Amino acid sequence: MQTSQRRLRRDIEANAEFGEIAVDTGRGRTVLTGTDADRRAREQFCDRLRDAELDVQIDAVGNIVGRWDPESADSAAAPVAAGSHLDSVPEGGIFDGPLGVYAALESVRAMQDAGVEPVRPVDVVCLTEEEGQRFDGGLLGSTVATGEMSVDDALALEDAEGVTLETALDDIGFRGEGVVDASEWDAWLELHIEQSERLEDADVPAGVVTTITGLTRCAVEFVGEANHAGSTLMGDRSDALAAASEFILDVEAAAQDVVEFSSETAVATVGWASVTPNAPNVIAGQTELTVDVRDVEADSIETIVDCAQQSLELIESSRDVTTTFERPWHRAPVEMSERCRDAMHAAGEEAEIATMDLHSGAAHDTMNIAAVTDAALLFAPSRDGISHNPREWTDWDDCAAATDVLAGALRTLATE
Amino acid sequence: MQTSQRRLRRDIEANAEFGEIAVDTGRGRTVLTGTDADRRAREQFCDRLRDAELDVQIDAVGNIVGRWDPESADSAAAPVAAGSHLDSVPEGGIFDGPLGVYAALESVRAMQDAGVEPVRPVDVVCLTEEEGQRFDGGLLGSTVATGEMSVDDALALEDAEGVTLETALDDIGFRGEGVVDASEWDAWLELHIEQSERLEDADVPAGVVTTITGLTRCAVEFVGEANHAGSTLMGDRSDALAAASEFILDVEAAAQDVVEFSSETAVATVGWASVTPNAPNVIAGQTELTVDVRDVEADSIETIVDCAQQSLELIESSRDVTTTFERPWHRAPVEMSERCRDAMHAAGEEAEIATMDLHSGAAHDTMNIAAVTDAALLFAPSRDGISHNPREWTDWDDCAAATDVLAGALRTLATE
Repeated sequence: MQTSQRRLRRDIEANAEFGEIAVDTGRGRTVLTGTDADRRAREQFCDRLRDAELDVQIDAVGNIVGRWDPESADSAAAPVAAGSHLDSVPEGGIFDGPLGVYAALESVRAMQDAGVEPVRPVDVVCLTEEEGQRFDGGLLGSTVATGEMSVDDALALEDAEGVTLETALDDIGFRGEGVVDASEWDAWLELHIEQSERLEDADVPAGVVTTITGLTRCAVEFVGEANHAGSTLMGDRSDALAAASEFILDVEAAAQDVVEFSSETAVATVGWASVTPNAPNVIAGQTELTVDVRDVEADSIETIVDCAQQSLELIESSRDVTTTFERPWHRAPVEMSERCRDAMHAAGEEAEIATMDLHSGAAHDTMNIAAVTDAALLFAPSRDGISHNPREWTDWDDCAAATDVLAGALRTLATE
Repeated sequence: MQTSQRRLRRDIEANAEFGEIAVDTGRGRTVLTGTDADRRAREQFCDRLRDAELDVQIDAVGNIVGRWDPESADSAAAPVAAGSHLDSVPEGGIFDGPLGVYAALESVRAMQDAGVEPVRPVDVVCLTEEEGQRFDGGLLGSTVATGEMSVDDALALEDAEGVTLETALDDIGFRGEGVVDASEWDAWLELHIEQSERLEDADVPAGVVTTITGLTRCAVEFVGEANHAGSTLMGDRSDALAAASEFILDVEAAAQDVVEFSSETAVATVGWASVTPNAPNVIAGQTELTVDVRDVEADSIETIVDCAQQSLELIESSRDVTTTFERPWHRAPVEMSERCRDAMHAAGEEAEIATMDLHSGAAHDTMNIAAVTDAALLFAPSRDGISHNPREWTDWDDCAAATDVLAGALRTLATE
């Protein structure tokens, strides 16, 4: 059985045109849920599913499932599923998400070409809003598909302009009916780019994830006093941006300490900040920011969050500002299914493609799905570890090799 | 001669409705050049000028002049002028600018009521975009009126969306002809809120400014690498927001050092920042910010700017980021005219209103005008020193007292 690099590349390159942005180096796209770019990406995916004669269903939150249910399969058996997401961060790359979606489809096409006779259906899946850039903290589609959030709650989510997910999906014609139930899957596999340099450094095209890091998202606000930048003496200021700057450096230092003394995989990031009124000649009266903390060790996350809260206390006592701290989002580290990992290693061995174990520093829908069924995550190399950036890149040979491993594992899971 | 607090308050309160914003405490407005709020503020001002039978002219960059040229005056003599601006910062207060514009008009009305017979015309002036929030670094109208910038260059200025000043003024019907020439004025007076607490602390309603601080505006950019917040290890990061945070604290510390060791009036502010791509799960690839540095001592400004540049060098060498530094805007400290200051002190004495000398930490159009004619600046108290904020406030009695001083000085300058 052999997957087709040509077909895979054609699909991913065609998908890359939706939401494409002008860049000097690399290839970038912005595909936020419910936008025109999202509509076009979804429509192409549905067309490709139908080209492969899969039965396409769209659920109430826009999750798309293409089911291959050939005569050999028991239609009532729990399906094996594989997929990823088609949305992106603003100015993201072309592989993060689409590789896993189209590799799953290519795996099915390869099985069809090779005359594989699965005993259970195979679902090729695109999950809604993995990146959480418009409506939620991320992993939206799988959060609903695993029953952690109700369809009604999801549809009522609003973007920054007050547009609901329901309206946004209606706008692009992708609000379907029912809801994908991930617990009904016999197993789930996701191929994704690594977004780190371990596979590239080891010259291995397929990484089998052992653990997905835990992830906490915090929301922090600093309130000072907006005042005139010229006539407010240094000693009379309550500067919310200077206070936030101190906090950003404290969070960075806390993560660096954890890396040095306990867990080298720990990371903390302030990637979003909003300054009010944000004028050159006005002292900032308010600054909001997010803190994203991750590690495979649950304790590391708590250590960094504790340091962040201590920093806020110190800043409140040393600067004339008030702060608020919320922690709206937390997921514990998640172990991957041994059965699925074994299937991936075995598929690599059979196809003579090297595989290696590693952890995932990024959250993925597989985190959610692992709570309700056997699930595993496979990585393809990312050049220089760059992602969420137009310079994100995975060589097409590596895409194809990792897809071969995915296809082999899917075949094993679908035929046993 | 007595100015009318009732008329003054009526005009300022009516003006406060244009661009009014909803706030819990105080009264706020956002009046950016060329917006509908700006149009309405300008139209009211022109109506009030005409109510007082002044001749209204609008120049090519939207500066408005209402001329009082009664029979007693030599129409060919150099006029005495007074005024300020009607634009605001985003979410600014209702006195910053409008007080000076309407106090100038009220001064003329009081002279008319009292039968004052000036020997030269009196110009009541509104200058375009003092706050520099949409098109330029600030003081736009006076920069053109003093010949520092050509009309063509000014009209070609673009806002963040690429709209030119020419288009914006056309949109609101305030692109006139010719250009106000401030050098033709015999003298210029501006009443403005203090934006600091010295008058309030001294319980004095009118402050005569001795020196306006110099002002430098710097533009700084940090370029790191946008990358995944979860899978990029702490040691592999090039975080443009963390780098910018270090810089913001260095600039604050540099200003605090100057205050401690050489000049207590020195200030430095990072009030505007832009993070790209600004997403919670993406390490910042780029951060831009502005630095606003001011003092009455020219040396202090240079010391702080030098420290800022040294900080950038250190940050470049210790973090994997590149930086750029520009200094697009600089004005040296400016001394006020002794003749005009004397007229203001004398007017206070005559009206039994206390006056005191102080410096201005804020830039004002008077900075520009002082380069081409005798100019002076008068301050009214600001409660708690707050400005550029809806809680900016000056008691109506203080507004009226300062306006009496302005009117007395204008009468002296117009009749001698």
